[in-house]
Amino acid sequence: MTDDTTKAAPESPAPPAGDVESQTPATGFGVTGILRRWRREDLVKRGSLALRGLGFLFSLLAFIVMASNSHGGWEDFDKYEEYRYVLAIAILSTLYTGAQALRQAQEMHAGKQFFPPLTLALVDFFGDQIVAYLLISAASSAIPLTNRMRQGADNIFTDSSSAAISMEFLAFIALAFSALISGYKLSTQSYI
Amino acid sequence: MTDDTTKAAPESPAPPAGDVESQTPATGFGVTGILRRWRREDLVKRGSLALRGLGFLFSLLAFIVMASNSHGGWEDFDKYEEYRYVLAIAILSTLYTGAQALRQAQEMHAGKQFFPPLTLALVDFFGDQIVAYLLISAASSAIPLTNRMRQGADNIFTDSSSAAISMEFLAFIALAFSALISGYKLSTQSYI
Repeated sequence: MTDDTTKAAPESPAPPAGDVESQTPATGFGVTGILRRWRREDLVKRGSLALRGLGFLFSLLAFIVMASNSHGGWEDFDKYEEYRYVLAIAILSTLYTGAQALRQAQEMHAGKQFFPPLTLALVDFFGDQIVAYLLISAASSAIPLTNRMRQGADNIFTDSSSAAISMEFLAFIALAFSALISGYKLSTQSYI
Repeated sequence: MTDDTTKAAPESPAPPAGDVESQTPATGFGVTGILRRWRREDLVKRGSLALRGLGFLFSLLAFIVMASNSHGGWEDFDKYEEYRYVLAIAILSTLYTGAQALRQAQEMHAGKQFFPPLTLALVDFFGDQIVAYLLISAASSAIPLTNRMRQGADNIFTDSSSAAISMEFLAFIALAFSALISGYKLSTQSYI
């Protein structure tokens, strides 16, 4: 953010002083301020896309690992409500982050937005926040069961469960940061 | 900060119009806009205090109910890591929300802030958000164990555990909304 401005500074040694400054809000002054703001918005956009992509990757991994985690007998994820919860939330998060990342990539490619910006900002923020809460909830609910199982047996079933839980926790981290960025975007909507 | 200004408003029925307007950011126009903004800030402050008060109440209840939940034999919260986690997070949340509500009440009484506003806004937002994540995590981790116990026995131990978990979930709801308000406050800080 500040790196760009230090680079841009030598190119415009004398920014217009006077009327322009008093009309712009407190974020920047004159042309350099506007340029700085554009670069920051671009950074925010890329960061948001990267975090959602990471969230999608980790959710998908959690989904695949947990869904393939049945080895007969008691070693079947379908026999435990915690693991079913983990799977359900992994599917939901995969769909949500996948759809959002796809939409964002399309928008960056086309260079325009297909939905009203305020609706989009609200859906973005509440979606990210709710999915983050669901992910941490699912991961937390499955950890004690897995801990207890590993005291008795340490095999491919418990290892796969741990892996799926870890992936879900990483997806939570990505979504929590994405919710921060979405909150920032929502706050820069002009109606507030 | 804003309390002084709302109190001061009737004493100066004709505030200077003109220069003042052009300096304010884009939120409102003229005197009505400024008044509207003051009222909204007052509402935000009261809402934040009320939510933190609720969060304190529910956390304290969860703490008391869980800490007194030992009836000998297997009916002892200390024997289960999930319930110890619930207790630990209830204590942490009680301390955090209590301290924050106390500080806010003092500030509203004194009509001024004792800390730099940006530091305060950052601590507020990240504190609320992190405590909300911890609360939903603790509540989620203890629910499956309690469910399984209640299939075998439905007595005062399982009932108290359920009550503590419910209180912790309500505290989570309060903190999640408080984090929304803190995020709004952070976004209105002028540096952004």
